[in-house]
Amino acid sequence: MSESETPVTYADIAAAAERLAPVAVATPLLNAPTLDQLCGARLLIKAEMLQRTGSFKVRGAYNRLVQLNADERRRGVVAFSSGNHAQAVAWAAQTLATPAAIVMPKRAPAIKAERTRGYGAEVILFEGDRVAMQAYARLLAAERQATLVPPFDDPRIIAGQGTLGIEIAAQARALGATPDLVLVPCSGGGLVAGTAIALRRDLPNAQVYAVEPEGFDDLARSLAAGARLTNAPGAHSICDALLVPSPGEITFAINRRLLAGSLVVADRDAERGMAVLFNHLKVVAEPGGAIALGAVLGGMLDVRGKTVVVVASGGNVDAALFAQILDRHPAA
Amino acid sequence: MSESETPVTYADIAAAAERLAPVAVATPLLNAPTLDQLCGARLLIKAEMLQRTGSFKVRGAYNRLVQLNADERRRGVVAFSSGNHAQAVAWAAQTLATPAAIVMPKRAPAIKAERTRGYGAEVILFEGDRVAMQAYARLLAAERQATLVPPFDDPRIIAGQGTLGIEIAAQARALGATPDLVLVPCSGGGLVAGTAIALRRDLPNAQVYAVEPEGFDDLARSLAAGARLTNAPGAHSICDALLVPSPGEITFAINRRLLAGSLVVADRDAERGMAVLFNHLKVVAEPGGAIALGAVLGGMLDVRGKTVVVVASGGNVDAALFAQILDRHPAA
Repeated sequence: MSESETPVTYADIAAAAERLAPVAVATPLLNAPTLDQLCGARLLIKAEMLQRTGSFKVRGAYNRLVQLNADERRRGVVAFSSGNHAQAVAWAAQTLATPAAIVMPKRAPAIKAERTRGYGAEVILFEGDRVAMQAYARLLAAERQATLVPPFDDPRIIAGQGTLGIEIAAQARALGATPDLVLVPCSGGGLVAGTAIALRRDLPNAQVYAVEPEGFDDLARSLAAGARLTNAPGAHSICDALLVPSPGEITFAINRRLLAGSLVVADRDAERGMAVLFNHLKVVAEPGGAIALGAVLGGMLDVRGKTVVVVASGGNVDAALFAQILDRHPAA
Repeated sequence: MSESETPVTYADIAAAAERLAPVAVATPLLNAPTLDQLCGARLLIKAEMLQRTGSFKVRGAYNRLVQLNADERRRGVVAFSSGNHAQAVAWAAQTLATPAAIVMPKRAPAIKAERTRGYGAEVILFEGDRVAMQAYARLLAAERQATLVPPFDDPRIIAGQGTLGIEIAAQARALGATPDLVLVPCSGGGLVAGTAIALRRDLPNAQVYAVEPEGFDDLARSLAAGARLTNAPGAHSICDALLVPSPGEITFAINRRLLAGSLVVADRDAERGMAVLFNHLKVVAEPGGAIALGAVLGGMLDVRGKTVVVVASGGNVDAALFAQILDRHPAA
């Protein structure tokens, strides 16, 4: 895929990085000798739980909202999200003094709804499936003449998430490391798509993989089929941030061309990833945020002797669940 | 106290910073708008749990060990510690290919003894009080003709810990912040002494406070008395890293001249500090590591409208205890 065929270019991502620099955190690329021993590889953990609002989602949300014109900003934004995109849009709207209404599922972690309100947004808790929630958000946006901010299938969102790739490449270079593999948690695919576009230029020899939870492996199956497939209804996963039913249209067009594949990880390995990040790196990951490390710990890929960038995409987990998971994985 | 009267000078600390640069982490100075709202102040959290071995202690230990001569390095080092200094000396010794034997109390958190072994040190678990443990370590060092590495009362250890102050000042400057207050967890007083020496030059208008646990407020009482006092035996605190019976001789001479005071914090406020760091910043602090934030949360000081640097000195806490503390502070 040449730059001209790509809906998002490297230049779009570089421009997003300039917009984000004054407001977002250049999160550290962490490492620990004890973690490398455990995994038999050199691991570099991109710590996006240390990002504003506790997840990478502000990168895309801010890059979208900062490009609204004055009239659009006045009318405000609407978003639907299970949590991290909700907080990110609320934070970006607050930063830009734009009104925001966020539609969230009733079953979302309490901390995510509380924090979204804390950033000044109107939160509407919705009971029903994702398709119904999305339809409701569209109606609400139309009614208010507000801008709907989608979670991933939007070139400006993808460009914002791609700033993670530019940072990873620069930070790896500063450490004298040349990553062989880059593992990125995946729901709708915006983060991995943007990151892959950035790394195609900045780390052309690295293989970029998406990582999905069991039961929500729509990208893995879609890549195999060569077409967008949907997850069977009724699946459950502890990775509440990664429960999208199918790949995005724009993101899939990028991911099918740029990714080395998508790894599918069991909940118990995502949990183990959380416990390992707690013990070895002293950071808090949510289940979906630890799934890329879960792929390494679960042996989904041969990492021996390799340099592996593991994206830890968020840390918004309720204290009670975190405590339960630590209790379940005492020897991590 | 002029530079000539000080056993540790700014130049000593700057030299230590150069030695540490290739091996230690320049830990980030974290902040979060939601944390600032909670505290009514601008808080900058120096995240030393992200340091090598999970605590600031490597700064002093490495600065001490790297100055051993070839003969001393061959004969090795001995240290006594409840945990963080143990891991730090073990790590520094491994980094410099020096043998290390570490005497630790039997009741130290399991993770600290395990990790010390993991860095290649010989660990000797000792049953008895701190005075007896210290005497045993001295005997062991004499027997082996090894160098005893004290935890705090040594100019090269203090200079190493002081590199934290240089980093804080530079990072605050980069954020456009001018700290009014700097709060530093305190046991023997090496970290706060070194930090105060560095900040006397780099942030001359900031007030530097030590923070101690209830029952181990030897520095607060010693500052009031103008002489080194000892804690009553039999006291308990959850802050296992901060249980030293009295101020060091060298550290007290520095601290009595440079500190604004020492704040005494209840265990429940240190625990609340851990829960707040979990929720708002997604980092893991041990009880002693969160005590400076506990001082703010417990209202020990009027921080309203001020810029406050809070040193979070370490994150080595067993998963089971961390889980219990999260359960005790659900609304942090």
